[in-house]
Amino acid sequence: MTKTFSYKLLAKKGNAKAGVMQTPHGEVATPVFMPVGTVGSVKAMSPEDVRMAGGEIVLGNTYHLYLRPGDGLVREMGGLQEFMRWQGPMLTDSGGYQVSSLGLFREESKEKLAKVKPTKIDEDGVTFWSHLDGSEHRFTPEKSIEIQENLGADVIMAFDEATPDRGREYAREAMQRTHNWLVRSKKRWEEMEEEKGEWWPQALFGIVQGGGYEDLRRESVEFVVKQDLPGMAIGGGSIGQDAAETEENVSWIRSQLPSDKPVYLMGVGKSPSEAVAAVLSGADMFDCVAPTRIARMGGLYVGELEVGGMTPKFASEHEHDRMNIDNRRFANDRGVIDDKCDCYTCRQGFSRAYLHHLFRSHELLYYRLASIHNTRVMIRTVGQVRAWVMEQG
Amino acid sequence: MTKTFSYKLLAKKGNAKAGVMQTPHGEVATPVFMPVGTVGSVKAMSPEDVRMAGGEIVLGNTYHLYLRPGDGLVREMGGLQEFMRWQGPMLTDSGGYQVSSLGLFREESKEKLAKVKPTKIDEDGVTFWSHLDGSEHRFTPEKSIEIQENLGADVIMAFDEATPDRGREYAREAMQRTHNWLVRSKKRWEEMEEEKGEWWPQALFGIVQGGGYEDLRRESVEFVVKQDLPGMAIGGGSIGQDAAETEENVSWIRSQLPSDKPVYLMGVGKSPSEAVAAVLSGADMFDCVAPTRIARMGGLYVGELEVGGMTPKFASEHEHDRMNIDNRRFANDRGVIDDKCDCYTCRQGFSRAYLHHLFRSHELLYYRLASIHNTRVMIRTVGQVRAWVMEQG
Repeated sequence: MTKTFSYKLLAKKGNAKAGVMQTPHGEVATPVFMPVGTVGSVKAMSPEDVRMAGGEIVLGNTYHLYLRPGDGLVREMGGLQEFMRWQGPMLTDSGGYQVSSLGLFREESKEKLAKVKPTKIDEDGVTFWSHLDGSEHRFTPEKSIEIQENLGADVIMAFDEATPDRGREYAREAMQRTHNWLVRSKKRWEEMEEEKGEWWPQALFGIVQGGGYEDLRRESVEFVVKQDLPGMAIGGGSIGQDAAETEENVSWIRSQLPSDKPVYLMGVGKSPSEAVAAVLSGADMFDCVAPTRIARMGGLYVGELEVGGMTPKFASEHEHDRMNIDNRRFANDRGVIDDKCDCYTCRQGFSRAYLHHLFRSHELLYYRLASIHNTRVMIRTVGQVRAWVMEQG
Repeated sequence: MTKTFSYKLLAKKGNAKAGVMQTPHGEVATPVFMPVGTVGSVKAMSPEDVRMAGGEIVLGNTYHLYLRPGDGLVREMGGLQEFMRWQGPMLTDSGGYQVSSLGLFREESKEKLAKVKPTKIDEDGVTFWSHLDGSEHRFTPEKSIEIQENLGADVIMAFDEATPDRGREYAREAMQRTHNWLVRSKKRWEEMEEEKGEWWPQALFGIVQGGGYEDLRRESVEFVVKQDLPGMAIGGGSIGQDAAETEENVSWIRSQLPSDKPVYLMGVGKSPSEAVAAVLSGADMFDCVAPTRIARMGGLYVGELEVGGMTPKFASEHEHDRMNIDNRRFANDRGVIDDKCDCYTCRQGFSRAYLHHLFRSHELLYYRLASIHNTRVMIRTVGQVRAWVMEQG
């Protein structure tokens, strides 16, 4: 097992980068779309399915894994990779997004509404109540790093506050808190790396916040870059809303982003088009639960990357690049989802008619076949843009 | 594609048979456990998963497929095998069990209770109401055969009434109805086989009924044998309740069962032990939804076949041969379900701790891994008993 984390830029075309990232659990060709395995499983997919779809690095959620099964247990089981039998690189988030946006859960479900009290954020950390059983918990930057050390991913994230849309003054406060927390995260990480015994080293990334305000974003990126960590991320609610907003937000700080380090756009990539936009805007890494979530709700990506013009473009006849398999017109459609697709589902010849039937019958097989397809389209598309960068750059 | 159905007895040991069944879609080594793909999918498993678990023949349910997606659509899609991408033999039941026991659905779910009216059985057929939308439908022997012709399985079943426990007089009436329906099923089948164009031939099996009454069972098997069909089945509620009852019921008619034809015990095999009992009682084929249903509910088979004594026995430390993965003691158990098991789930090293976590988190991956394991244990165990028969017989 390699003991170091490194990133190497191989080519650049416009803002788009192509590189390779070395982690203790293997190499990752960047840019890369990271499937999300929230509680230690990319929903409906086995590790082999993820690998078959071209997955190179999987994301786990600190908030969810801390609550269940518990980070101590995951450590006892040999770390997250060993626990879920994923033989490859992993990244964990810091839980910052989940705990600072826990209020959102209350809108999602009445059951959760009954259990979850509003999150309390102070300068030292965040007190929150579990969405599972309503129990009280507290995360600090130090706690988040310790949990992530237990989980054992190759890349870990500094604790941050995902800035809600409450005006400029709040965004500035949240940004400064995030900066303070970054310094503390880094300190705890450095201590723990020194103490390390048999466990592999982990690369810490800082997170840029600052909401939808250009000057705050510029101030934040300057601060994060100064920490000189192995990589950095761009976070917050105003990233990931839509491709245009993401692009604008990134454009403010583009000149300040390091080209010799990986840049991770958090929560971005609801469709192949958004994945292409993320890569073209300069992202090395990005993740989104949407491809598998959309798949489970009947949305299947159809289209392909066109590289004929000045810049690659994901061309699809369908709005948001997806067809709705629930549509009655697919009931007797003998074709596969996309006859140009090389995913397992399409290669095995499962027809739209069959998938339509499985979806309507709530058959478990549907969720797997659909998730494999959407994940493969995301990963293949990003790989095609990477090839274009390598060729043109 | 072979155009004929045949069965060859290869060896016998006690009542247990070992043989081989030829179908238009390939060979099946008997005795065989048939995984149930109710609506065209063995729940949570792909066709490749079924094959990998050793599955040789899959069962589809006429009642369910008739309602959704509809047998006409399945035919249009090239038949059930092509529709679900199962490259192998299939069997469909006649729908008789489902429509005559539809009342049972009302106990399962309040939602269904609201929709489903009691089934009306008359000499000509059965009128019933869909559990999906409450719509009215009617099955007759002819209709059942026509639906099964559309579905296109290799083995089809005569229309029957699964005899409820309402006393001897009712059991006699139901048996006689089933006999009349068998004659009509056979007539319609013969007509359709003559009309056949590009579609492959299908083998019709008759069904023995007679409830829990020895004399009725003996009368019924005599009638069914006289029809001289390619195979026969033993059906009814008193089959499949438990291994002892199944054994007793089969013992009444054992001397009348043909040894040169496959005998199918319907709905039998809730555990590896029951599978072994079914084979030892003389079954060539049997099916049960229990292995995958139990898996989804957390029950995982553990144990192995012992052939040291006079007769093979499935030895397990666990009641009903299964452990409950929900049990807290598995939370930090790094072992696989069964370290002697050769199923995908165990070979990939998924730990009890991980499966416990997935189960508690309602992760879709759990249902697949658990279903693969239980199905493999059933099929492997039956294969081991077959090997014993071949060796000793």
